[in-house]
Amino acid sequence: MSALLRHFIRDNSWWLIIAVQLLSLTAHAQGDPLPSWNSSAVKQSIIRFVSTITNEQSTQYVPPEDRIATFDNDGTLWAEKPVIQEQFVVFRIIQLVKQTPALRNKQPYKAILEKNRAYLKTLGRKGLLDLMDLTHTGMTETDFHDAVMRFFAVVKHPVLGVPVAQLVYQPQLELLNYLRDNQFKIYICSGGTVEFIRAISQKYYGIPPEQVIGTTFRYAYVDSAGVNDIMRLKGLNPLNDKREKPVNIQYYIGKRPILACGNIGGGGDISMLRFCQGNKYPSLQLLVHHDDGEREFEYEEDDNESLNNAHRYGWGVISMKNDWQHIFVGPTP
Amino acid sequence: MSALLRHFIRDNSWWLIIAVQLLSLTAHAQGDPLPSWNSSAVKQSIIRFVSTITNEQSTQYVPPEDRIATFDNDGTLWAEKPVIQEQFVVFRIIQLVKQTPALRNKQPYKAILEKNRAYLKTLGRKGLLDLMDLTHTGMTETDFHDAVMRFFAVVKHPVLGVPVAQLVYQPQLELLNYLRDNQFKIYICSGGTVEFIRAISQKYYGIPPEQVIGTTFRYAYVDSAGVNDIMRLKGLNPLNDKREKPVNIQYYIGKRPILACGNIGGGGDISMLRFCQGNKYPSLQLLVHHDDGEREFEYEEDDNESLNNAHRYGWGVISMKNDWQHIFVGPTP
Repeated sequence: MSALLRHFIRDNSWWLIIAVQLLSLTAHAQGDPLPSWNSSAVKQSIIRFVSTITNEQSTQYVPPEDRIATFDNDGTLWAEKPVIQEQFVVFRIIQLVKQTPALRNKQPYKAILEKNRAYLKTLGRKGLLDLMDLTHTGMTETDFHDAVMRFFAVVKHPVLGVPVAQLVYQPQLELLNYLRDNQFKIYICSGGTVEFIRAISQKYYGIPPEQVIGTTFRYAYVDSAGVNDIMRLKGLNPLNDKREKPVNIQYYIGKRPILACGNIGGGGDISMLRFCQGNKYPSLQLLVHHDDGEREFEYEEDDNESLNNAHRYGWGVISMKNDWQHIFVGPTP
Repeated sequence: MSALLRHFIRDNSWWLIIAVQLLSLTAHAQGDPLPSWNSSAVKQSIIRFVSTITNEQSTQYVPPEDRIATFDNDGTLWAEKPVIQEQFVVFRIIQLVKQTPALRNKQPYKAILEKNRAYLKTLGRKGLLDLMDLTHTGMTETDFHDAVMRFFAVVKHPVLGVPVAQLVYQPQLELLNYLRDNQFKIYICSGGTVEFIRAISQKYYGIPPEQVIGTTFRYAYVDSAGVNDIMRLKGLNPLNDKREKPVNIQYYIGKRPILACGNIGGGGDISMLRFCQGNKYPSLQLLVHHDDGEREFEYEEDDNESLNNAHRYGWGVISMKNDWQHIFVGPTP
């Protein structure tokens, strides 16, 4: 660091802040759209892809209306250890017990309040679906939205101790902005339930609610006795995961993405990336690899299915450790 | 007509064409965004509504991201006598018989080819659903799209004898443009099946495929044996009609429209308009009334349900006869 900079830090640290912002602006203007990414092969492949498909002189040119990108959410745009929507389940249980204190001694309320993981593990698939119904349905869409907004206003990550907004990956925000600057229309395609993500998609990612695809419940429209609203009914529709992701992309968008980005965890994004790769246009597939136990979390799949597919089909693997200079938006947790 | 104009028509008709285009441009520039609409109360209510909700000084201001409009399609954006998708069923049956000539003597192929309406009436709900499966499923999404494109390239209206593109209502195109100019995001919300409409939504209406909500079939994603595609499976999901329209608007958009437009026919749009009216923002509801037997078709509902709701809730009723100076885009059929 130069003596001049040291001087500014000691005596005029606000100058340094302005200098850093100017440097960042300059980097942007000079054409580094991904400043939090290290200059690695995957970063170069992204920039090469975007430059090519937006070049009208190229045989690989893709018209703006077909520049669809789909991103998984948990583990791809924000951290997923633990999955944030699980914390919402706990939040809702606490709310319900506040409303009806007698529930405190009833299961599964009791187990959730006491963090009795042994009991929760005995619930099985049916018990977990019941828990989703209990915490996510039986109310109007308006009331559910209010509950989600209250949750995001107060929740902190149980390990990292920061608000959820700070679990968003800074390099991915830069990628989203870069794609938008190049007239991509970006969708989230997540296993999480759709209104939960829609509540924060614009604020956290700049993605409008109508560009979020997720898991849904059954609904009924009610227009009587002073109620004019969607009622949230029990019964989760098929989870928007694995082979359901292309199916729902077809339902919601009716176009294949030319860029799809998921993460290595439960193999949930393989089909979405394959569907993208079947596009008649050139396409790019990306998988976030959680290989940075120091700055985030470190985990893989038992069967290595996502990585195996990445090697087989030439997908880009984003190493959080090597490819990302910063992990989280805002102050590092 | 002035002597001057008569002179131009006789000797220099291309001058007239330029003059008419200039007049039309002037009208647009001078602020009549709906030149094919007569200066009626409903036209004024539309312009007043749009002017108010886009005025940042107004207490009724609606931010651009919440300017959602939903339009029914059959009978609202194009003529529905007969429903155009019914013609596609016939088109597909003829295709299938060409591929497998032995089907010619089998039902329901035989009845369709012979226009045997008496037989078709005996089919009932189950028979009609089977007919939809037969003509719309059992293929990849790619192949289905090709079939739809072939249909739209050749089909003509059985009574009016014009291509389907000319069954679009000119005043509605002006309304769509006017709304887009004012940063509305416009969705089609139709009982027709979604990919059928998506195939022409951009070309006919300037509405991108991903902003079309319609009835869907069951799908499965297949990625094996050289096939990487969505397979269209038998089994129509619930018809996107009546109370299902608000439900699907919730699934697809997650926001209530501030403007909803349907038509008087089967009462299919009442719930969509009511859902719109429940918006926390100011909103406008419109119903097209087919009361012009000379220039289009004349029909109402047996129970008058749509009109009754329009009177009860103060919705705008668009009289095709009195409110629209022109009906169809392009040359009048």
